[in-house]
Amino acid sequence: MTDVAWIAVDWGTSHVRAWLMRADGTVLDRRSSAQGMGSLDRAGFEPALRALVGDALPAPVLACGMVGSRQGWAEAPYAAVPCAPPSAAEAVRVTGTDLDVRILPGVKQVKPADVMRGEETQIAGFLAMSPGFDGVICLPGTHTKWAHVSAGEIVSFRTAMTGEMFALLSEQSVLRHSVGDGWDADSFAAGVDQSLSRPEGLAAALFSLRAEGLLDGLPGDAARARLSGLLVGAELAAMRPYWLGQQVALIGAEALSSAYAEALKTQGVPSQMADAEEMTLAGLTAAYTQIYGEAA
Amino acid sequence: MTDVAWIAVDWGTSHVRAWLMRADGTVLDRRSSAQGMGSLDRAGFEPALRALVGDALPAPVLACGMVGSRQGWAEAPYAAVPCAPPSAAEAVRVTGTDLDVRILPGVKQVKPADVMRGEETQIAGFLAMSPGFDGVICLPGTHTKWAHVSAGEIVSFRTAMTGEMFALLSEQSVLRHSVGDGWDADSFAAGVDQSLSRPEGLAAALFSLRAEGLLDGLPGDAARARLSGLLVGAELAAMRPYWLGQQVALIGAEALSSAYAEALKTQGVPSQMADAEEMTLAGLTAAYTQIYGEAA
Repeated sequence: MTDVAWIAVDWGTSHVRAWLMRADGTVLDRRSSAQGMGSLDRAGFEPALRALVGDALPAPVLACGMVGSRQGWAEAPYAAVPCAPPSAAEAVRVTGTDLDVRILPGVKQVKPADVMRGEETQIAGFLAMSPGFDGVICLPGTHTKWAHVSAGEIVSFRTAMTGEMFALLSEQSVLRHSVGDGWDADSFAAGVDQSLSRPEGLAAALFSLRAEGLLDGLPGDAARARLSGLLVGAELAAMRPYWLGQQVALIGAEALSSAYAEALKTQGVPSQMADAEEMTLAGLTAAYTQIYGEAA
Repeated sequence: MTDVAWIAVDWGTSHVRAWLMRADGTVLDRRSSAQGMGSLDRAGFEPALRALVGDALPAPVLACGMVGSRQGWAEAPYAAVPCAPPSAAEAVRVTGTDLDVRILPGVKQVKPADVMRGEETQIAGFLAMSPGFDGVICLPGTHTKWAHVSAGEIVSFRTAMTGEMFALLSEQSVLRHSVGDGWDADSFAAGVDQSLSRPEGLAAALFSLRAEGLLDGLPGDAARARLSGLLVGAELAAMRPYWLGQQVALIGAEALSSAYAEALKTQGVPSQMADAEEMTLAGLTAAYTQIYGEAA
Protein backbone atom coordinates (compact mmCIF):
# COMPACT_ATOMS: atom_id res chain seq x y z
CA MET A 1 0.00 0.00 0.00
CA THR A 2 2.33 2.67 -1.31
CA ASP A 3 -0.20 5.46 -0.68
CA VAL A 4 0.31 5.16 3.08
CA ALA A 5 2.54 8.00 4.30
CA TRP A 6 2.25 7.06 7.98
CA ILE A 7 0.12 5.14 10.45
CA ALA A 8 -1.67 6.76 13.38
CA VAL A 9 -2.27 4.38 16.31
CA ASP A 10 -4.35 4.77 19.47
CA TRP A 11 -3.25 1.82 21.59
CA GLY A 12 -5.23 1.55 24.81
CA THR A 13 -5.63 -1.09 27.50
CA SER A 14 -8.38 -3.08 25.82
CA HIS A 15 -8.24 -2.04 22.15
CA VAL A 16 -5.94 -0.78 19.43
CA ARG A 17 -7.13 1.51 16.62
CA ALA A 18 -5.10 2.40 13.55
CA TRP A 19 -5.58 4.86 10.72
CA LEU A 20 -3.64 4.48 7.46
CA MET A 21 -2.84 8.07 6.49
CA ARG A 22 -2.10 9.57 3.09
CA ALA A 23 0.48 12.34 2.77
CA ASP A 24 -2.32 14.87 2.26
CA GLY A 25 -3.74 14.09 5.70
CA THR A 26 -6.74 12.07 4.52
CA VAL A 27 -7.55 8.63 5.85
CA LEU A 28 -7.04 5.68 3.51
CA ASP A 29 -8.32 3.04 5.93
CA ARG A 30 -9.33 2.49 9.55
CA ARG A 31 -8.56 -0.71 11.45
CA SER A 32 -9.02 -1.94 14.99
CA SER A 33 -8.53 -5.05 17.08
CA ALA A 34 -8.96 -6.24 20.67
CA GLN A 35 -5.19 -6.69 21.11
CA GLY A 36 -4.95 -3.95 23.69
CA MET A 37 -1.95 -3.33 25.94
CA GLY A 38 -3.61 -5.32 28.73
CA SER A 39 -3.55 -8.58 26.78
CA LEU A 40 0.04 -8.29 25.50
CA ASP A 41 3.50 -8.79 26.93
CA ARG A 42 6.38 -6.76 25.53
CA ALA A 43 7.14 -9.27 22.77
CA GLY A 44 3.51 -9.25 21.67
CA PHE A 45 3.26 -5.66 20.43
CA GLU A 46 5.12 -6.01 17.13
CA PRO A 47 3.16 -9.11 16.01
CA ALA A 48 -0.09 -7.38 17.04
CA LEU A 49 0.84 -4.31 14.99
CA ARG A 50 1.84 -6.43 11.99
CA ALA A 51 -1.41 -8.38 12.22
CA LEU A 52 -3.38 -5.14 12.14
CA VAL A 53 -1.49 -3.02 9.56
CA GLY A 54 1.24 -5.29 8.18
CA ASP A 55 0.27 -4.48 4.58
CA ALA A 56 1.02 -0.80 5.18
CA LEU A 57 4.39 -1.26 6.88
CA PRO A 58 7.18 -0.14 6.99
CA ALA A 59 5.41 3.24 6.95
CA PRO A 60 6.32 5.17 10.10
CA VAL A 61 4.01 4.69 13.08
CA LEU A 62 3.04 7.31 15.66
CA ALA A 63 1.13 5.95 18.68
CA CYS A 64 -0.43 7.23 21.88
CA GLY A 65 -2.03 5.59 24.90
CA MET A 66 -1.19 2.79 27.29
CA VAL A 67 1.27 1.35 24.76
CA GLY A 68 3.65 3.89 26.33
CA SER A 69 3.15 2.72 29.92
CA ARG A 70 5.63 0.70 31.95
CA GLN A 71 3.76 -2.47 30.95
CA GLY A 72 3.57 -1.30 27.32
CA TRP A 73 5.86 -1.67 24.29
CA ALA A 74 8.25 1.05 25.42
CA GLU A 75 7.89 3.41 28.35
CA ALA A 76 7.31 7.02 27.36
CA PRO A 77 7.82 9.00 30.58
CA TYR A 78 5.08 11.42 31.61
CA ALA A 79 5.32 15.16 31.00
CA ALA A 80 4.30 17.12 34.12
CA VAL A 81 1.60 19.79 34.23
CA PRO A 82 1.53 22.66 33.62
CA CYS A 83 2.59 21.75 30.09
CA ALA A 84 1.40 21.68 26.51
CA PRO A 85 0.22 18.23 25.39
CA PRO A 86 3.49 16.37 24.71
CA SER A 87 4.94 17.17 21.31
CA ALA A 88 6.41 14.77 18.81
CA ALA A 89 9.86 15.85 19.93
CA GLU A 90 9.18 14.07 23.21
CA ALA A 91 8.00 10.85 21.53
CA VAL A 92 9.99 7.73 22.41
CA ARG A 93 11.34 5.63 19.54
CA VAL A 94 10.76 1.92 20.14
CA THR A 95 14.00 -0.08 20.02
CA GLY A 96 14.51 -3.74 19.20
CA THR A 97 12.49 -3.56 15.99
CA ASP A 98 13.21 -2.64 12.39
CA LEU A 99 10.01 -0.62 12.32
CA ASP A 100 9.88 3.13 12.86
CA VAL A 101 7.49 3.30 15.82
CA ARG A 102 7.27 6.35 18.07
CA ILE A 103 5.11 6.66 21.20
CA LEU A 104 3.85 9.94 22.63
CA PRO A 105 4.26 10.45 26.40
CA GLY A 106 1.35 10.75 28.80
CA VAL A 107 0.90 13.59 31.27
CA LYS A 108 1.19 13.50 35.06
CA GLN A 109 0.26 15.82 37.88
CA VAL A 110 2.41 15.68 41.01
CA LYS A 111 -0.17 16.91 43.54
CA PRO A 112 -2.87 15.77 43.72
CA ALA A 113 -1.26 12.78 42.04
CA ASP A 114 -2.87 11.97 38.71
CA VAL A 115 -1.96 10.51 35.32
CA MET A 116 -3.32 10.29 31.80
CA ARG A 117 -2.21 8.40 28.68
CA GLY A 118 -4.07 9.01 25.44
CA GLU A 119 -6.35 11.80 26.64
CA GLU A 120 -3.50 14.33 26.26
CA THR A 121 -3.49 13.50 22.53
CA GLN A 122 -7.26 14.10 22.33
CA ILE A 123 -6.71 17.43 24.07
CA ALA A 124 -3.94 18.23 21.56
CA GLY A 125 -6.35 17.41 18.74
CA PHE A 126 -9.02 19.64 20.22
CA LEU A 127 -6.51 22.49 20.61
CA ALA A 128 -5.33 21.98 17.02
CA MET A 129 -8.90 22.57 15.87
CA SER A 130 -9.70 25.32 18.43
CA PRO A 131 -6.32 27.04 18.93
CA GLY A 132 -7.55 29.80 21.21
CA PHE A 133 -9.53 27.55 23.56
CA ASP A 134 -9.37 28.52 27.21
CA GLY A 135 -11.51 26.54 29.63
CA VAL A 136 -12.34 23.07 30.81
CA ILE A 137 -12.20 19.84 28.84
CA CYS A 138 -13.99 16.76 30.16
CA LEU A 139 -13.22 13.37 28.60
CA PRO A 140 -15.93 10.92 29.78
CA GLY A 141 -15.01 7.25 29.75
CA THR A 142 -13.88 4.36 31.90
CA HIS A 143 -11.70 6.83 33.75
CA THR A 144 -13.16 10.25 33.10
CA LYS A 145 -10.63 13.11 32.98
CA TRP A 146 -11.29 16.76 33.74
CA ALA A 147 -8.61 19.18 32.53
CA HIS A 148 -8.20 22.90 32.88
CA VAL A 149 -6.63 24.18 29.67
CA SER A 150 -5.24 27.68 29.18
CA ALA A 151 -2.86 29.28 26.70
CA GLY A 152 -2.31 25.96 24.98
CA GLU A 153 -1.30 24.20 28.19
CA ILE A 154 -2.89 21.61 30.46
CA VAL A 155 -2.85 23.50 33.75
CA SER A 156 -4.30 20.81 36.03
CA PHE A 157 -6.45 17.70 35.79
CA ARG A 158 -8.27 15.05 37.83
CA THR A 159 -9.62 11.57 37.16
CA ALA A 160 -12.86 9.93 38.31
CA MET A 161 -13.35 6.19 37.88
CA THR A 162 -17.03 6.68 37.09
CA GLY A 163 -17.23 4.45 34.00
CA GLU A 164 -15.41 1.60 35.70
CA MET A 165 -17.53 1.93 38.86
CA PHE A 166 -20.70 1.84 36.77
CA ALA A 167 -19.57 -1.30 34.96
CA LEU A 168 -18.58 -3.08 38.19
CA LEU A 169 -21.74 -2.11 40.07
CA SER A 170 -24.17 -2.78 37.23
CA GLU A 171 -22.61 -6.04 36.06
CA GLN A 172 -20.97 -7.61 39.10
CA SER A 173 -22.50 -6.29 42.32
CA VAL A 174 -25.85 -7.22 43.87
CA LEU A 175 -27.31 -4.32 41.88
CA ARG A 176 -27.01 -6.42 38.70
CA HIS A 177 -30.27 -8.11 39.74
CA SER A 178 -32.10 -4.77 39.62
CA VAL A 179 -30.37 -3.02 36.71
CA GLY A 180 -31.72 -3.53 33.18
CA ASP A 181 -30.41 -2.71 29.72
CA GLY A 182 -32.45 0.39 28.90
CA TRP A 183 -32.37 4.03 29.88
CA ASP A 184 -34.71 6.52 31.47
CA ALA A 185 -33.67 10.16 31.18
CA ASP A 186 -35.72 11.37 34.16
CA SER A 187 -34.16 8.74 36.43
CA PHE A 188 -30.69 9.78 35.28
CA ALA A 189 -31.47 13.42 36.08
CA ALA A 190 -32.89 12.44 39.48
CA GLY A 191 -29.72 10.51 40.32
CA VAL A 192 -27.48 13.41 39.28
CA ASP A 193 -29.54 15.81 41.38
CA GLN A 194 -29.53 13.48 44.39
CA SER A 195 -25.74 13.08 44.40
CA LEU A 196 -25.06 16.75 43.72
CA SER A 197 -27.37 17.95 46.48
CA ARG A 198 -26.33 15.24 48.98
CA PRO A 199 -22.96 13.81 47.87
CA GLU A 200 -22.42 12.44 51.37
CA GLY A 201 -25.44 10.14 50.90
CA LEU A 202 -24.01 8.10 48.01
CA ALA A 203 -23.05 5.05 50.08
CA ALA A 204 -26.66 4.55 51.20
CA ALA A 205 -28.27 5.64 47.92
CA LEU A 206 -26.73 2.79 45.91
CA PHE A 207 -28.33 -0.10 47.81
CA SER A 208 -31.71 1.64 47.59
CA LEU A 209 -31.74 0.67 43.91
CA ARG A 210 -31.75 -2.99 44.94
CA ALA A 211 -34.31 -2.48 47.70
CA GLU A 212 -36.65 -0.49 45.44
CA GLY A 213 -36.31 -3.26 42.86
CA LEU A 214 -37.41 -5.81 45.43
CA LEU A 215 -40.07 -3.80 47.24
CA ASP A 216 -41.44 -1.35 44.69
CA GLY A 217 -40.77 -3.10 41.39
CA LEU A 218 -38.40 -0.32 40.25
CA PRO A 219 -38.01 -0.93 36.48
CA GLY A 220 -34.57 -2.01 35.27
CA ASP A 221 -34.29 0.96 32.88
CA ALA A 222 -34.90 3.40 35.71
CA ALA A 223 -32.47 1.60 38.01
CA ARG A 224 -29.71 1.62 35.39
CA ALA A 225 -30.17 5.30 34.58
CA ARG A 226 -30.41 6.32 38.25
CA LEU A 227 -27.23 4.35 39.06
CA SER A 228 -25.45 6.19 36.27
CA GLY A 229 -26.90 9.50 37.48
CA LEU A 230 -25.81 8.88 41.08
CA LEU A 231 -22.24 8.16 39.95
CA VAL A 232 -22.03 11.02 37.44
CA GLY A 233 -23.52 13.32 40.09
CA ALA A 234 -20.89 12.18 42.60
CA GLU A 235 -18.23 12.89 39.97
CA LEU A 236 -19.64 16.35 39.31
CA ALA A 237 -19.65 17.01 43.06
CA ALA A 238 -15.95 16.11 43.20
CA MET A 239 -15.13 18.13 40.07
CA ARG A 240 -17.14 21.26 40.94
CA PRO A 241 -13.99 23.46 40.97
CA TYR A 242 -13.49 22.49 37.32
CA TRP A 243 -16.94 23.24 35.86
CA LEU A 244 -18.46 25.85 38.15
CA GLY A 245 -19.03 28.98 36.09
CA GLN A 246 -17.17 27.51 33.11
CA GLN A 247 -17.85 26.36 29.58
CA VAL A 248 -17.06 22.69 29.20
CA ALA A 249 -15.87 20.88 26.08
CA LEU A 250 -16.83 17.20 26.17
CA ILE A 251 -14.65 14.75 24.24
CA GLY A 252 -16.03 11.22 24.23
CA ALA A 253 -18.47 8.72 22.75
CA GLU A 254 -21.68 10.47 21.76
CA ALA A 255 -24.18 8.76 24.10
CA LEU A 256 -21.94 9.16 27.12
CA SER A 257 -21.01 12.76 26.32
CA SER A 258 -24.71 13.55 25.88
CA ALA A 259 -25.43 12.22 29.36
CA TYR A 260 -22.69 14.45 30.79
CA ALA A 261 -24.03 17.40 28.78
CA GLU A 262 -27.50 16.80 30.26
CA ALA A 263 -26.08 16.59 33.77
CA LEU A 264 -24.09 19.81 33.32
CA LYS A 265 -27.14 21.55 31.86
CA THR A 266 -29.08 20.92 35.09
CA GLN A 267 -26.37 22.98 36.80
CA GLY A 268 -26.61 25.77 34.24
CA VAL A 269 -23.29 24.82 32.65
CA PRO A 270 -23.17 24.99 28.83
CA SER A 271 -21.10 22.46 26.96
CA GLN A 272 -19.96 21.58 23.47
CA MET A 273 -19.20 18.09 22.21
CA ALA A 274 -16.36 16.68 20.13
CA ASP A 275 -15.85 13.10 18.95
CA ALA A 276 -13.12 11.20 20.79
CA GLU A 277 -11.79 9.32 17.76
CA GLU A 278 -11.64 12.45 15.64
CA MET A 279 -9.76 14.31 18.38
CA THR A 280 -7.29 11.43 18.78
CA LEU A 281 -6.57 11.41 15.06
CA ALA A 282 -6.26 15.20 15.00
CA GLY A 283 -3.83 15.06 17.92
CA LEU A 284 -1.71 12.35 16.32
CA THR A 285 -1.76 14.25 13.02
CA ALA A 286 -0.64 17.46 14.71
CA ALA A 287 2.21 15.59 16.37
CA TYR A 288 3.18 13.82 13.15
CA THR A 289 3.51 17.07 11.25
CA GLN A 290 5.77 18.32 14.06
CA ILE A 291 8.15 15.47 13.25
CA TYR A 292 7.92 15.11 9.52
CA GLY A 293 6.51 18.44 8.39
CA GLU A 294 3.34 19.20 6.46
CA ALA A 295 4.62 17.78 3.21
CA ALA A 296 5.83 14.46 4.54
CA MET B 1 -27.25 -38.36 66.74
CA THR B 2 -30.05 -38.61 69.27
CA ASP B 3 -28.64 -35.78 71.39
CA VAL B 4 -29.60 -33.21 68.75
CA ALA B 5 -32.76 -31.38 69.84
CA TRP B 6 -32.79 -28.99 66.89
CA ILE B 7 -30.57 -27.50 64.20
CA ALA B 8 -29.86 -23.79 63.89
CA VAL B 9 -29.02 -22.66 60.35
CA ASP B 10 -27.66 -19.38 58.99
CA TRP B 11 -28.12 -19.73 55.23
CA GLY B 12 -26.67 -16.80 53.32
CA THR B 13 -25.91 -16.08 49.69
CA SER B 14 -22.45 -17.62 49.61
CA HIS B 15 -22.32 -19.91 52.67
CA VAL B 16 -24.46 -22.00 54.98
CA ARG B 17 -23.62 -22.51 58.65
CA ALA B 18 -25.32 -25.02 60.94
CA TRP B 19 -25.20 -25.66 64.68
CA LEU B 20 -26.39 -28.98 66.11
CA MET B 21 -28.08 -27.99 69.35
CA ARG B 22 -28.72 -29.99 72.51
CA ALA B 23 -31.94 -29.48 74.46
CA ASP B 24 -30.01 -27.60 77.15
CA GLY B 25 -28.98 -24.95 74.61
CA THR B 26 -25.36 -26.05 74.24
CA VAL B 27 -23.74 -26.69 70.88
CA LEU B 28 -22.96 -30.28 69.99
CA ASP B 29 -21.29 -29.51 66.67
CA ARG B 30 -20.75 -26.72 64.12
CA ARG B 31 -20.79 -27.29 60.38
CA SER B 32 -20.52 -25.11 57.30
CA SER B 33 -20.35 -25.39 53.53
CA ALA B 34 -20.14 -23.18 50.46
CA GLN B 35 -23.61 -24.27 49.26
CA GLY B 36 -25.09 -20.82 49.76
CA MET B 37 -28.43 -19.68 48.38
CA GLY B 38 -26.70 -18.13 45.37
CA SER B 39 -25.46 -21.47 44.08
CA LEU B 40 -28.71 -23.43 44.55
CA ASP B 41 -32.02 -23.68 42.75
CA ARG B 42 -35.14 -24.52 44.73
CA ALA B 43 -34.65 -28.27 44.41
CA GLY B 44 -31.09 -27.98 45.65
CA PHE B 45 -31.74 -26.86 49.22
CA GLU B 46 -32.87 -30.16 50.71
CA PRO B 47 -29.91 -32.14 49.31
CA ALA B 48 -27.55 -29.38 50.51
CA LEU B 49 -29.06 -29.52 53.99
CA ARG B 50 -28.87 -33.33 54.08
CA ALA B 51 -25.24 -33.22 52.92
CA LEU B 52 -24.39 -30.86 55.76
CA VAL B 53 -26.41 -32.25 58.71
CA GLY B 54 -28.07 -35.45 57.42
CA ASP B 55 -26.83 -37.43 60.42
CA ALA B 56 -28.78 -35.14 62.77
CA LEU B 57 -32.06 -35.15 60.84
CA PRO B 58 -35.05 -35.33 61.25
CA ALA B 59 -34.43 -32.91 64.13
CA PRO B 60 -36.36 -29.67 63.50
CA VAL B 61 -34.50 -26.93 61.65
CA LEU B 62 -34.80 -23.19 62.19
CA ALA B 63 -33.06 -21.04 59.56
CA CYS B 64 -32.48 -17.37 58.81
CA GLY B 65 -30.95 -15.47 55.91
CA MET B 66 -31.24 -15.46 52.14
CA VAL B 67 -32.73 -18.98 52.22
CA GLY B 68 -35.98 -17.09 52.86
CA SER B 69 -35.70 -14.83 49.80
CA ARG B 70 -37.71 -15.17 46.60
CA GLN B 71 -34.84 -17.13 45.08
CA GLY B 72 -34.47 -19.21 48.26
CA TRP B 73 -36.03 -22.44 49.50
CA ALA B 74 -39.30 -20.81 50.53
CA GLU B 75 -40.12 -17.12 50.57
CA ALA B 76 -40.56 -15.69 54.07
CA PRO B 77 -42.11 -12.25 53.52
CA TYR B 78 -40.46 -9.26 55.15
CA ALA B 79 -41.74 -7.71 58.36
CA ALA B 80 -41.87 -3.90 58.09
CA VAL B 81 -40.18 -1.47 60.48
CA PRO B 82 -40.91 -0.32 63.09
CA CYS B 83 -41.08 -3.88 64.41
CA ALA B 84 -39.37 -6.29 66.75
CA PRO B 85 -37.04 -8.72 64.98
CA PRO B 86 -39.43 -11.31 63.47
CA SER B 87 -40.51 -13.92 65.99
CA ALA B 88 -40.75 -17.66 65.47
CA ALA B 89 -44.52 -17.27 65.09
CA GLU B 90 -43.82 -15.50 61.79
CA ALA B 91 -41.48 -18.23 60.53
CA VAL B 92 -42.51 -19.92 57.27
CA ARG B 93 -42.69 -23.70 57.25
CA VAL B 94 -41.08 -25.15 54.12
CA THR B 95 -43.49 -27.37 52.16
CA GLY B 96 -42.72 -30.21 49.78
CA THR B 97 -40.38 -31.95 52.21
CA ASP B 98 -40.77 -34.44 55.06
CA LEU B 99 -38.38 -32.37 57.11
CA ASP B 100 -39.49 -29.80 59.69
CA VAL B 101 -37.77 -26.69 58.35
CA ARG B 102 -38.84 -23.18 59.32
CA ILE B 103 -37.40 -19.94 57.95
CA LEU B 104 -37.45 -16.61 59.76
CA PRO B 105 -38.57 -13.55 57.76
CA GLY B 106 -36.30 -10.63 56.94
CA VAL B 107 -37.14 -7.00 57.66
CA LYS B 108 -37.98 -4.24 55.20
CA GLN B 109 -38.27 -0.47 55.35
CA VAL B 110 -40.71 1.19 52.97
CA LYS B 111 -39.07 4.61 52.73
CA PRO B 112 -36.19 4.98 52.16
CA ALA B 113 -36.53 1.50 50.67
CA ASP B 114 -34.27 -1.02 52.36
CA VAL B 115 -34.15 -4.72 53.20
CA MET B 116 -32.25 -7.14 55.44
CA ARG B 117 -32.23 -10.93 55.74
CA GLY B 118 -30.18 -12.50 58.49
CA GLU B 119 -29.09 -9.32 60.24
CA GLU B 120 -32.48 -9.08 62.01
CA THR B 121 -31.64 -12.41 63.68
CA GLN B 122 -28.27 -11.05 64.83
CA ILE B 123 -30.09 -8.03 66.23
CA ALA B 124 -32.54 -10.38 67.98
CA GLY B 125 -29.59 -12.26 69.47
CA PHE B 126 -28.01 -9.04 70.67
CA LEU B 127 -31.29 -7.94 72.24
CA ALA B 128 -31.70 -11.35 73.89
CA MET B 129 -28.36 -10.80 75.62
CA SER B 130 -28.84 -7.04 76.27
CA PRO B 131 -32.63 -6.75 76.74
CA GLY B 132 -32.70 -3.07 77.66
CA PHE B 133 -30.49 -1.90 74.77
CA ASP B 134 -31.51 1.39 73.22
CA GLY B 135 -29.27 2.82 70.52
CA VAL B 136 -27.59 2.06 67.25
CA ILE B 137 -26.41 -1.30 65.95
CA CYS B 138 -23.99 -1.46 63.03
CA LEU B 139 -23.41 -4.79 61.29
CA PRO B 140 -20.30 -4.41 59.09
CA GLY B 141 -20.02 -6.78 56.14
CA THR B 142 -20.52 -7.09 52.40
CA HIS B 143 -23.63 -4.96 52.83
CA THR B 144 -23.22 -3.10 56.09
CA LYS B 145 -26.43 -2.38 57.98
CA TRP B 146 -27.07 0.47 60.40
CA ALA B 147 -30.15 0.05 62.61
CA HIS B 148 -31.75 2.28 65.19
CA VAL B 149 -33.11 0.02 67.93
CA SER B 150 -35.41 1.18 70.71
CA ALA B 151 -37.78 -0.58 73.13
CA GLY B 152 -36.98 -3.94 71.56
CA GLU B 153 -37.89 -2.77 68.05
CA ILE B 154 -35.94 -1.98 64.90
CA VAL B 155 -37.07 1.60 64.30
CA SER B 156 -35.24 2.30 61.04
CA PHE B 157 -32.21 1.05 59.13
CA ARG B 158 -30.00 1.71 56.09
CA THR B 159 -27.56 -0.35 54.04
CA ALA B 160 -24.18 0.65 52.57
CA MET B 161 -22.50 -1.63 50.03
CA THR B 162 -19.08 -0.83 51.46
CA GLY B 163 -17.74 -4.39 51.69
CA GLU B 164 -18.81 -5.25 48.16
CA MET B 165 -17.41 -1.96 46.80
CA PHE B 166 -14.09 -2.65 48.51
CA ALA B 167 -13.91 -6.14 47.03
CA LEU B 168 -14.78 -4.95 43.52
CA LEU B 169 -12.40 -1.99 43.57
CA SER B 170 -9.47 -3.78 45.20
CA GLU B 171 -9.75 -6.99 43.18
CA GLN B 172 -11.25 -6.05 39.82
CA SER B 173 -10.73 -2.35 39.08
CA VAL B 174 -7.54 -0.63 37.92
CA LEU B 175 -6.75 -0.10 41.62
CA ARG B 176 -5.90 -3.81 41.92
CA HIS B 177 -2.47 -2.94 40.48
CA SER B 178 -1.78 -0.60 43.40
CA VAL B 179 -3.50 -2.40 46.29
CA GLY B 180 -1.54 -4.98 48.29
CA ASP B 181 -2.50 -7.58 50.88
CA GLY B 182 -1.43 -5.85 54.07
CA TRP B 183 -2.77 -3.08 56.25
CA ASP B 184 -1.58 0.27 57.52
CA ALA B 185 -3.64 1.75 60.35
CA ASP B 186 -2.54 5.35 59.73
CA SER B 187 -3.55 5.14 56.08
CA PHE B 188 -6.95 3.76 57.04
CA ALA B 189 -7.48 6.65 59.48
CA ALA B 190 -6.36 9.16 56.83
CA GLY B 191 -8.87 7.73 54.35
CA VAL B 192 -11.70 7.88 56.88
CA ASP B 193 -10.84 11.46 57.73
CA GLN B 194 -10.60 12.47 54.07
CA SER B 195 -14.03 11.08 53.17
CA LEU B 196 -15.70 12.40 56.31
CA SER B 197 -14.33 15.90 55.89
CA ARG B 198 -14.84 16.00 52.08
CA PRO B 199 -17.38 13.30 51.16
CA GLU B 200 -18.00 15.05 47.86
CA GLY B 201 -14.39 14.34 46.84
CA LEU B 202 -14.65 10.55 46.85
CA ALA B 203 -14.92 10.12 43.07
CA ALA B 204 -11.56 11.83 42.55
CA ALA B 205 -9.89 10.41 45.66
CA LEU B 206 -10.12 6.80 44.48
CA PHE B 207 -8.02 7.15 41.33
CA SER B 208 -5.35 8.99 43.32
CA LEU B 209 -4.47 5.63 44.86
CA ARG B 210 -3.47 4.38 41.42
CA ALA B 211 -1.67 7.59 40.48
CA GLU B 212 0.27 7.68 43.78
CA GLY B 213 1.20 4.05 43.21
CA LEU B 214 2.64 4.94 39.80
CA LEU B 215 4.25 8.28 40.63
CA ASP B 216 5.15 8.11 44.32
CA GLY B 217 5.56 4.38 44.92
CA LEU B 218 2.65 4.33 47.39
CA PRO B 219 3.04 0.97 49.21
CA GLY B 220 0.33 -1.62 48.61
CA ASP B 221 -0.49 -1.89 52.32
CA ALA B 222 -1.10 1.83 52.54
CA ALA B 223 -3.18 1.84 49.35
CA ARG B 224 -5.36 -1.02 50.57
CA ALA B 225 -5.95 0.56 53.98
CA ARG B 226 -6.61 4.02 52.51
CA LEU B 227 -9.09 2.56 50.01
CA SER B 228 -10.92 0.88 52.88
CA GLY B 229 -10.77 4.10 54.89
CA LEU B 230 -12.14 6.20 52.02
CA LEU B 231 -15.09 3.82 51.62
CA VAL B 232 -15.79 3.43 55.34
CA GLY B 233 -15.52 7.21 55.70
CA ALA B 234 -18.01 7.67 52.86
CA GLU B 235 -20.32 5.23 54.62
CA LEU B 236 -19.97 7.10 57.92
CA ALA B 237 -20.75 10.35 56.11
CA ALA B 238 -23.96 8.80 54.76
CA MET B 239 -24.87 7.27 58.13
CA ARG B 240 -24.10 10.31 60.28
CA PRO B 241 -27.73 10.58 61.48
CA TYR B 242 -27.33 7.09 62.92
CA TRP B 243 -24.11 7.46 64.92
CA LEU B 244 -23.85 11.15 65.76
CA GLY B 245 -23.96 11.50 69.54
CA GLN B 246 -24.80 7.80 69.99
CA GLN B 247 -23.28 4.65 71.39
CA VAL B 248 -22.80 2.06 68.68
CA ALA B 249 -22.88 -1.72 69.03
CA LEU B 250 -20.84 -3.40 66.29
CA ILE B 251 -21.83 -6.94 65.27
CA GLY B 252 -19.44 -8.48 62.78
CA ALA B 253 -16.17 -10.27 62.14
CA GLU B 254 -13.53 -9.05 64.58
CA ALA B 255 -11.02 -7.43 62.19
CA LEU B 256 -13.72 -5.57 60.28
CA SER B 257 -15.56 -4.47 63.43
CA SER B 258 -12.28 -3.22 64.87
CA ALA B 259 -11.73 -1.06 61.79
CA TYR B 260 -15.20 0.44 62.22
CA ALA B 261 -14.55 0.96 65.93
CA GLU B 262 -11.34 2.84 65.09
CA ALA B 263 -13.16 4.97 62.52
CA LEU B 264 -15.94 5.81 64.98
CA LYS B 265 -13.40 6.62 67.69
CA THR B 266 -11.88 9.33 65.48
CA GLN B 267 -15.33 10.97 65.60
CA GLY B 268 -15.58 10.64 69.37
CA VAL B 269 -18.15 7.84 69.13
CA PRO B 270 -17.72 4.97 71.60
CA SER B 271 -18.58 1.45 70.50
CA GLN B 272 -18.85 -2.07 71.83
CA MET B 273 -18.27 -5.22 69.79
CA ALA B 274 -20.18 -8.49 69.55
CA ASP B 275 -19.36 -11.56 67.46
CA ALA B 276 -21.63 -12.05 64.45
CA GLU B 277 -21.81 -15.84 64.66
CA GLU B 278 -22.60 -15.77 68.37
CA MET B 279 -25.36 -13.22 67.82
CA THR B 280 -26.85 -15.28 64.98
CA LEU B 281 -26.95 -18.36 67.17
CA ALA B 282 -28.40 -16.40 70.08
CA GLY B 283 -31.09 -15.00 67.80
CA LEU B 284 -31.99 -18.39 66.37
CA THR B 285 -32.02 -19.85 69.90
CA ALA B 286 -34.34 -17.11 71.16
CA ALA B 287 -36.70 -17.76 68.25
CA TYR B 288 -36.55 -21.53 68.75
CA THR B 289 -37.56 -21.27 72.39
CA GLN B 290 -40.51 -19.13 71.28
CA ILE B 291 -41.76 -22.08 69.24
CA TYR B 292 -40.84 -25.07 71.31
CA GLY B 293 -40.37 -23.66 74.79
CA GLU B 294 -37.29 -23.72 77.01
CA ALA B 295 -37.57 -27.40 77.81
CA ALA B 296 -37.91 -28.67 74.25
